[in-house]
Amino acid sequence: MARTGRRPGNQDTREAIIAAAREAFAEKGYDRASIRAIATGAGVDPALVHHYFGTKDQLFLATVNAPIDPAQILPRVLDGSTEELPERLVRTFLSVWDHPVSGPAAVALLRSGLQHDWSARMLREFLTTRVIRRVISQLQLDPAEAPLRGSLVATQMIGLGLIRYVLKVEPLAAAPPEVVVAAVAPTIHRYLLEPLDVPAASIP
Amino acid sequence: MARTGRRPGNQDTREAIIAAAREAFAEKGYDRASIRAIATGAGVDPALVHHYFGTKDQLFLATVNAPIDPAQILPRVLDGSTEELPERLVRTFLSVWDHPVSGPAAVALLRSGLQHDWSARMLREFLTTRVIRRVISQLQLDPAEAPLRGSLVATQMIGLGLIRYVLKVEPLAAAPPEVVVAAVAPTIHRYLLEPLDVPAASIP
Repeated sequence: MARTGRRPGNQDTREAIIAAAREAFAEKGYDRASIRAIATGAGVDPALVHHYFGTKDQLFLATVNAPIDPAQILPRVLDGSTEELPERLVRTFLSVWDHPVSGPAAVALLRSGLQHDWSARMLREFLTTRVIRRVISQLQLDPAEAPLRGSLVATQMIGLGLIRYVLKVEPLAAAPPEVVVAAVAPTIHRYLLEPLDVPAASIP
Repeated sequence: MARTGRRPGNQDTREAIIAAAREAFAEKGYDRASIRAIATGAGVDPALVHHYFGTKDQLFLATVNAPIDPAQILPRVLDGSTEELPERLVRTFLSVWDHPVSGPAAVALLRSGLQHDWSARMLREFLTTRVIRRVISQLQLDPAEAPLRGSLVATQMIGLGLIRYVLKVEPLAAAPPEVVVAAVAPTIHRYLLEPLDVPAASIP
């Protein structure tokens, strides 16, 4: 492919870092991938990784092509009463996906995330470390149940994104946000805050 | 691509029919696509379409590469008390996705369904006409709410398939079926059988 950027040298370096980061995050997961190892993989100094991408967090978001940094919008979900957190979660999710810029980017992230094993691992890391873990860490949950509750919330939210925005199944695709919030928030409420009637010993 | 089949002529005809069917189902939807129009698109006699693929139903299943004919397993969901239908739905869904043959095929259907606009339309047609519509038609639901209820069930089930089998988010990926049934069936119960607290006038 012809290089058309103004600064091809820098562009090459950025791409090498992104490629090394993608490999590291997909293979080791977010927590165990280090900036040092990514820099070595890209053949550059770790300082250069920080120079181009900032923190490991920011590098990860650039690597998955995240439409938005969850850290910026999660306060809208987490601030306020726990009882109403499910409603705020669904409402905030819809505001991202209904938005003319971040919406199509979210659809692209979901679509591309499912195409390869490595991209699926990246999407999983994104969901678990950027979103699920941060939401459940704010709640006083039984540690034996918290990860299961988090992954149940993920099933409902990613399924909502898929049916409403990717497959566009009606009438959900055209439903006003208030209808979706009223229908789905009680599910999130149960997954996060109500008894699950699942014996703790049977949770992996 | 080199043709290696034993009967290249027949294979060509089959492929031409599949290609025409894919276009017709994606563009017009299952209901409005006709065998006659598909035959014309493939340049063959309608009788040949029936000869190779049987009914329109069977042609559709071949075209989407369905891992299993929903009509064969839906009785396992529909037969029995309405009250326990949600449990049977989740249990049957898991039995398809946990199965060593139909499971990977279901993952492939979901993955490939999201890659293109036309395949997304095919997957939507598959979900709505083969599964959702058949389940909700068995229940005594308010017609103003039934389609919304059906699409809500779809969000939960497709999200479960995605998180457990494609992204493999733990602990849900490794959870025994009974845990998943206990956790998810109440959601399906609410979407199908309980008040949604959504004003009917606001449903599209």
